[in-house]
Amino acid sequence: MRLAELSERSGVSTATIKYYLRERLLPPGERITATQAEYGEEHLRRLRLVRALIQVGRMPVATAREVLEAAEDESLSQNARVGTAVWALPHGAEPDPDDPQAARARGQVDTLLERMGWAYCQELGDASPAYRMLTAAIASLARLGYPHDTEHLLLHARLAAELAVSDVDLVEAYDTPAERIEAAVALTVLYEPVLLSLRRLAQTEESGRRFGE
Amino acid sequence: MRLAELSERSGVSTATIKYYLRERLLPPGERITATQAEYGEEHLRRLRLVRALIQVGRMPVATAREVLEAAEDESLSQNARVGTAVWALPHGAEPDPDDPQAARARGQVDTLLERMGWAYCQELGDASPAYRMLTAAIASLARLGYPHDTEHLLLHARLAAELAVSDVDLVEAYDTPAERIEAAVALTVLYEPVLLSLRRLAQTEESGRRFGE
Repeated sequence: MRLAELSERSGVSTATIKYYLRERLLPPGERITATQAEYGEEHLRRLRLVRALIQVGRMPVATAREVLEAAEDESLSQNARVGTAVWALPHGAEPDPDDPQAARARGQVDTLLERMGWAYCQELGDASPAYRMLTAAIASLARLGYPHDTEHLLLHARLAAELAVSDVDLVEAYDTPAERIEAAVALTVLYEPVLLSLRRLAQTEESGRRFGE
Repeated sequence: MRLAELSERSGVSTATIKYYLRERLLPPGERITATQAEYGEEHLRRLRLVRALIQVGRMPVATAREVLEAAEDESLSQNARVGTAVWALPHGAEPDPDDPQAARARGQVDTLLERMGWAYCQELGDASPAYRMLTAAIASLARLGYPHDTEHLLLHARLAAELAVSDVDLVEAYDTPAERIEAAVALTVLYEPVLLSLRRLAQTEESGRRFGE
């Protein structure tokens, strides 16, 4: 398809598509004439992912490019490509290495992974940005004196494990490795506001039932 | 206690405490002499909440002040004060009123609330920022062509409901209404990165098991 059709089918303006091409967020089309190029279904799919990262995930262009480069690194296995792309997503605060609460929080994360039997995560340890994000979050709870006992964290972990089965089912439903990698990254980003808003709605409901007049 | 002790016990520098006092994020202490004031346990508690909002939740000072003012509005019931304070938290994207996907997403949110039996949330409807955040998130999934069927959303909602029971238990363990309101706001903010990082860890584990070499 030509640029105009790519724009129409994706709902992204031609100016924005040209910008994404210049910024290497989108691979170049196949050159037909000096001024025209032909784009394929893979461009359409890639545009969806770029919009998920930039417009919904509010990611800077440079970060989105890192995520996409990791997703495309053919020297890696499919699983490693998903992992590397998700690792390139923003993860928020890092634990402060000088904070004694962070050292204790790290011990608690290790206990949690052990009790969940999450062997892949144990092997990765703090190489994983999500491990460090969790450590920083528990350290904040501890520093501010809010509850963060392992049983309460385990409840969150068990529910996250249930969600993950269904998340990975969605990814597995795609046919090709490229589609699976793109879906894994996009669904990670796009379902985060779903989960957070449902948690706030559920809290409203639960406190309404207990404390409502 | 004097300012120096408040600083030591909270781990917040005296300069930052003075800044919070000027910005009305912290109520003034009881004046003892022309240059000294006395602070109480409620100042210590409030400082914890301010740090949770600003340092962990990365909230602008003006937004934090709105959250705190809502938490303190004594014309409201305890439940309404919690609700108003949580509503003042940032909620991300709003649905686009001109987007036909947003209208469909809203219908899906209504079905979800109905099927969950979330009567308080149904009554609030789109007055609730979490309702609008969920609508925007579902509309993005739809616009980008990613799966968002009601069964998959229901799974998330049921897990969120389980978490909410335990979240509200934590809040109920505090003795006074003021502490409960502050804990509800702080725990909403502080547990979001816990939940998101555990989801990413669980996904790593699940895809490692399925696709790992």
